[in-house]
Amino acid sequence: MSTTRNLVALSAPEAAELVSPDSLVLLPVGAIEQHGPHLPLDTDALLAEAAAQALLDDPPPGVDLWTLPTLAYSTSSEHLFAAGTMSLSEETFLAVLDDLGRSVAALPARRLVILNGHGGNTALFRVACRRLRLQYGLLTFLVHPVLSADHGGPKGEDGEDGLGCHANCGETSLLLHLHPDRVHLERAVSNVPRWLADYDHVGLGGDVTFGWSAGDFGDSGVIGDPTRATPERGAELWAAILVELRAALVEVARFDFPASVLSGRR
Amino acid sequence: MSTTRNLVALSAPEAAELVSPDSLVLLPVGAIEQHGPHLPLDTDALLAEAAAQALLDDPPPGVDLWTLPTLAYSTSSEHLFAAGTMSLSEETFLAVLDDLGRSVAALPARRLVILNGHGGNTALFRVACRRLRLQYGLLTFLVHPVLSADHGGPKGEDGEDGLGCHANCGETSLLLHLHPDRVHLERAVSNVPRWLADYDHVGLGGDVTFGWSAGDFGDSGVIGDPTRATPERGAELWAAILVELRAALVEVARFDFPASVLSGRR
Amino acid sequence: MSTTRNLVALSAPEAAELVSPDSLVLLPVGAIEQHGPHLPLDTDALLAEAAAQALLDDPPPGVDLWTLPTLAYSTSSEHLFAAGTMSLSEETFLAVLDDLGRSVAALPARRLVILNGHGGNTALFRVACRRLRLQYGLLTFLVHPVLSADHGGPKGEDGEDGLGCHANCGETSLLLHLHPDRVHLERAVSNVPRWLADYDHVGLGGDVTFGWSAGDFGDSGVIGDPTRATPERGAELWAAILVELRAALVEVARFDFPASVLSGRR
Amino acid sequence: MSTTRNLVALSAPEAAELVSPDSLVLLPVGAIEQHGPHLPLDTDALLAEAAAQALLDDPPPGVDLWTLPTLAYSTSSEHLFAAGTMSLSEETFLAVLDDLGRSVAALPARRLVILNGHGGNTALFRVACRRLRLQYGLLTFLVHPVLSADHGGPKGEDGEDGLGCHANCGETSLLLHLHPDRVHLERAVSNVPRWLADYDHVGLGGDVTFGWSAGDFGDSGVIGDPTRATPERGAELWAAILVELRAALVEVARFDFPASVLSGRR
Amino acid sequence: MSTTRNLVALSAPEAAELVSPDSLVLLPVGAIEQHGPHLPLDTDALLAEAAAQALLDDPPPGVDLWTLPTLAYSTSSEHLFAAGTMSLSEETFLAVLDDLGRSVAALPARRLVILNGHGGNTALFRVACRRLRLQYGLLTFLVHPVLSADHGGPKGEDGEDGLGCHANCGETSLLLHLHPDRVHLERAVSNVPRWLADYDHVGLGGDVTFGWSAGDFGDSGVIGDPTRATPERGAELWAAILVELRAALVEVARFDFPASVLSGRR
Amino acid sequence: MSTTRNLVALSAPEAAELVSPDSLVLLPVGAIEQHGPHLPLDTDALLAEAAAQALLDDPPPGVDLWTLPTLAYSTSSEHLFAAGTMSLSEETFLAVLDDLGRSVAALPARRLVILNGHGGNTALFRVACRRLRLQYGLLTFLVHPVLSADHGGPKGEDGEDGLGCHANCGETSLLLHLHPDRVHLERAVSNVPRWLADYDHVGLGGDVTFGWSAGDFGDSGVIGDPTRATPERGAELWAAILVELRAALVEVARFDFPASVLSGRR
Repeated sequence: MSTTRNLVALSAPEAAELVSPDSLVLLPVGAIEQHGPHLPLDTDALLAEAAAQALLDDPPPGVDLWTLPTLAYSTSSEHLFAAGTMSLSEETFLAVLDDLGRSVAALPARRLVILNGHGGNTALFRVACRRLRLQYGLLTFLVHPVLSADHGGPKGEDGEDGLGCHANCGETSLLLHLHPDRVHLERAVSNVPRWLADYDHVGLGGDVTFGWSAGDFGDSGVIGDPTRATPERGAELWAAILVELRAALVEVARFDFPASVLSGRR
Repeated sequence: MSTTRNLVALSAPEAAELVSPDSLVLLPVGAIEQHGPHLPLDTDALLAEAAAQALLDDPPPGVDLWTLPTLAYSTSSEHLFAAGTMSLSEETFLAVLDDLGRSVAALPARRLVILNGHGGNTALFRVACRRLRLQYGLLTFLVHPVLSADHGGPKGEDGEDGLGCHANCGETSLLLHLHPDRVHLERAVSNVPRWLADYDHVGLGGDVTFGWSAGDFGDSGVIGDPTRATPERGAELWAAILVELRAALVEVARFDFPASVLSGRR
Repeated sequence: MSTTRNLVALSAPEAAELVSPDSLVLLPVGAIEQHGPHLPLDTDALLAEAAAQALLDDPPPGVDLWTLPTLAYSTSSEHLFAAGTMSLSEETFLAVLDDLGRSVAALPARRLVILNGHGGNTALFRVACRRLRLQYGLLTFLVHPVLSADHGGPKGEDGEDGLGCHANCGETSLLLHLHPDRVHLERAVSNVPRWLADYDHVGLGGDVTFGWSAGDFGDSGVIGDPTRATPERGAELWAAILVELRAALVEVARFDFPASVLSGRR
Repeated sequence: MSTTRNLVALSAPEAAELVSPDSLVLLPVGAIEQHGPHLPLDTDALLAEAAAQALLDDPPPGVDLWTLPTLAYSTSSEHLFAAGTMSLSEETFLAVLDDLGRSVAALPARRLVILNGHGGNTALFRVACRRLRLQYGLLTFLVHPVLSADHGGPKGEDGEDGLGCHANCGETSLLLHLHPDRVHLERAVSNVPRWLADYDHVGLGGDVTFGWSAGDFGDSGVIGDPTRATPERGAELWAAILVELRAALVEVARFDFPASVLSGRR
Repeated sequence: MSTTRNLVALSAPEAAELVSPDSLVLLPVGAIEQHGPHLPLDTDALLAEAAAQALLDDPPPGVDLWTLPTLAYSTSSEHLFAAGTMSLSEETFLAVLDDLGRSVAALPARRLVILNGHGGNTALFRVACRRLRLQYGLLTFLVHPVLSADHGGPKGEDGEDGLGCHANCGETSLLLHLHPDRVHLERAVSNVPRWLADYDHVGLGGDVTFGWSAGDFGDSGVIGDPTRATPERGAELWAAILVELRAALVEVARFDFPASVLSGRR
Repeated sequence: MSTTRNLVALSAPEAAELVSPDSLVLLPVGAIEQHGPHLPLDTDALLAEAAAQALLDDPPPGVDLWTLPTLAYSTSSEHLFAAGTMSLSEETFLAVLDDLGRSVAALPARRLVILNGHGGNTALFRVACRRLRLQYGLLTFLVHPVLSADHGGPKGEDGEDGLGCHANCGETSLLLHLHPDRVHLERAVSNVPRWLADYDHVGLGGDVTFGWSAGDFGDSGVIGDPTRATPERGAELWAAILVELRAALVEVARFDFPASVLSGRR
């Protein structure tokens, strides 16, 4: 029996044999987009990749986990104001996810987990998860190494008053921990949108959401205060993230609908 | 000067004259979809319509509010397992919103508010709000009469253990208050997915979201316990909703990005 | 048994039970578009809505009629030169009609009638009627409260020399009858394209049709002479329209292809 | 000066020099579709081609006419029940017409005339004519050698009671005149849908139109009575058609909007 | 038995009867695009048409060949810099080929041959051939009267150093042979991109291909040296082309996959 | 000055500063598709990745080379008969390339090189290279580590009679050299389509190309004879490939159109 958990390292006959209805297929997705003057364009791809690798190296107990190659490119339209951002349109990205979902559904696996390194894709992934459930009968799940405040994630306590959501203290700390050579902390600038505190309803993660470009928050491309970032904070966050991800996958592996009336692959 | 706030009751020259950069254009969107055996197919459209009408009848102070006709049809793919549901595909609905946003942007108004009566559209609307901001320079906002638990809304206390999200106690109570003749409470059945309580991560509004059809929860089309609904509970909820919506619109009317670097309509 | 004929006031199980192969499902479609300085943007939606309501209030004898909510937004590209017009692109609108037709075809009904309040959509609806017939096996029909001269309708005798086709005497009279508060007759201007009389072949409803924007006829947005409109003329027209519509639906209800070789839903 | 009027026989520099704002560009469009057991699949293409050739051979006086190659393939979805029909989908065909219109608009010409040999395309061409007018500023016109009864054309007097519209007496007579070697009159069958006479509103060219496939009228693919066709009748019809087409083009060549407010190419 | 080999000259019932699984359906495709100052816009359509006609007049022995009407319009985006070019977008053209392929697959025939008169379409046709094989089970083939150097064709010896690929000596000679009246040889200019000889890898038909517009090679629209063209050279080339095409079709007619595991039409 | 040549390791401001009009941006593209019983699904991605890495480690002299992350997923429709293949549709993949090209064009770079690890994408990339040249003004190039025989590449001499093109001796040898742990040579089977030798015109890389699925060649998914593969052969091939690629990039870096009349970015 093969011990690798890298799905694409298998040959096609191996994949058909080793992947089973109990398997969980993991698709890590990153982004190539501006992350201020101090973080690299591939920050989100690095985070998704690192999380996938950690899960591959030390799979959650009892989970038959198979990872796919990281999709580095996704939708980053809110960062297109800055050159260097590589963004698929929303329609194109939904079509990519449809095609990949259809391909996964041709395997014996029933569970597809999207590991999302880029908060800006959360809404699109929720749309895609529903479609792949309905069109191909897959059980679909969306997990985040870091759920952004904009989608109900923790609002942080890093001197950002819960207003950091891009290239901020937490994200920068994680990079300092995982890829210190990629961070130019000396170039980091703080740009906490404290003016948002004037609103009770409208806000990142508020009950009234709003359309925005990162350029709406100024020209730095930062939303938060990365100047407070430290590798220690990053190590701490990363450890917590991995604990959560492993626990989440354990649940995903046993999740099912006990009374579904849908036909097709259950 | 015209005192109506129904945008489409104006002639085109009036619209160009009376709508200003300070105006707020409101687009109510409903859905036509199964709501169990006791609620009508147009439940979400009725809620969006009633909220829009209440705001039109008694506009929030200081808000130059103009409403558009309710778009009754939207995306309800998760309810297509039951005949009677009328659903636009995700691509079609995004295209509809693009076209309507482009049309609104031809007016002097800068602010578009989507009033969403159907929780299942929340992710699509978040995608659309971003696109309309980026493509047409509109300030875009998403408000809900009832934000579903699945998107971070309140989880209710109606004997549903926070697991009611469709045709449930709250929604049924609202209909009993607003349109009692449309409710067949005697046909209501309870279908609380208590099995979800076995999961800490995966859940409606959990940190791990999942793709689902209402048919995944059983054949009734209900997710929650509508049998506990009362008109009194509905009246109470409705009053609270209107207070929240008015407060939200007051904020929306003054919301702006103080340091945006985007070109175009600000 | 339910006595309502508003399809979406039913619950999903009721719809599946009460709608039968003999039922006729009616989809009213309007438009939001400039109608000169004297008529509201929603003129066509008001007409479609009023006709649907009249049919709902007093259904044609022997017709099992079920109405859907009015689709207020449609394609009005020929009026986009004036702000206030809300227009779906042709592709988007065809996709909307495909989606709605597919949804109707999931019910037991076999007959779908589009009640078209906006002449500019006639060609698109003819395309859609054919597609829905071929793709979903529905029997599809297109009816008009007012068939425009441009598509073979009556050319009027209202001092317009058969050249009135938008915001003209007839349409204005109808609004004066149905919604007098929405009409600013004092702002009405006459714009009869008498220059068209120089052509024998090219013309509105001629054997040579031509592409046009309402802006091709001048800046008023009017094509015709609304200054002659009266509520009496409107009442007269409306009565005749309802007689025709009722008679048309009686025919539609019994229409069938006696020798069709198509498979699928007959 | 070149004397040819075949646009594509010119070199590109010649086209840019000889085509002027007064020129009229003619695009003949046919169809490849079943025409019963007695007429060839390319009947409509032959008609469009013959008309274009006749106009090319003897251009209407004072008209600077340039013809394009006949587009043999178009939308014939209503004939796809019979193998041999070659049909583009509606979306594809609209896209083809957009592309061709954009290409024509790059020339100095302002007027594009579509010569439609296939009645089933009339609605699509009306949609396209509007789009090309609005998107590229072209003056667009739609002419027919034979306008079908379904779109307001003459209902014929050929023993078909006005109910012949495909592979019928008139069309067959025209082919007998133009391409007698292509007609197998001995195989012709009559299929006049006299049951349509039971309807006053619903009908081919009636005020209530309906979606249909030719297969809805039976398995022969004929709608009408071709058995009465004669070459003499065809010669008579053809002579009348050419008189009408020439007169139409003379009008088209001088047609313009005297008061258009549209920007762009007038 | 019919002796014609023009597929669309058949009636639908004839087509279903005479076309068999052994038949080969030939679709000639041309282009309408600039060909320098000396050749007509329809050069590629003329070549495809002439080749198809020659095959029709003298079919290869033992081949049951049926030709379709020439599709004159295709994708010529690399020539759009010059007015007169009529080009479908790549997506539109692929959709056209899908639709035509689906239509052919409804006949008993199993083999579709695209006869490509325009080198610029070669890559698109290779994509289409694969799709039609996979989607409709057709055996699909791509043949060229003249395979361009850019796609591995012969590089010529006409004083062009293998660098002629559009409106060049060979193509001009062919036109001088086939349609001398269409050629203005006195206007021909030479434009051989000898600078390409500086590259060993990058080149027309090199192992590194590159994106280009004909305008990238100068303003004449010529790539090669047509001034050396003669009708004698054209006659010689044409004879060789027909020999090759006939031999190719003989092979195509017997080609099959001996061990295919694909389901569907083989 | 940064010494890395990994474009996405830069921050956005760095990218805007360090990338110049002389820079060459390299996009490696792989595929996830069946490669017989002995090679992994990601064979093509591994090859593209290894080549990109080699070029990054030892850039060609004088070339300002910047690499993008490998796009692992592309179009592999001809391998979808075997589960494990992950394939984007042709339209989706073209849209992805458009989006990425547009993003690259926002940088100061003028040259985009696609490094194609999967022969099956060659035609699509040629289409894309032309589009990106025309739409965004980029100079675009397509290079292959291994150009397949099907597109004019070397036909090999590995006992495959020039008929090996997928999971064959050469490709297997390369994997044995680069990733020996991924190869199960003991499972390799030979499947040389010697029946192709019966055809002179139709063939892989012949003058008549044909649509095929790998399943058309049998159920093994192999086209060629991988059983003869050795790591020594792989090392030899790899060394030659890198020499060629470096030489190609040196040319690409100086390639330009000396007389282009196109506007926009040159």
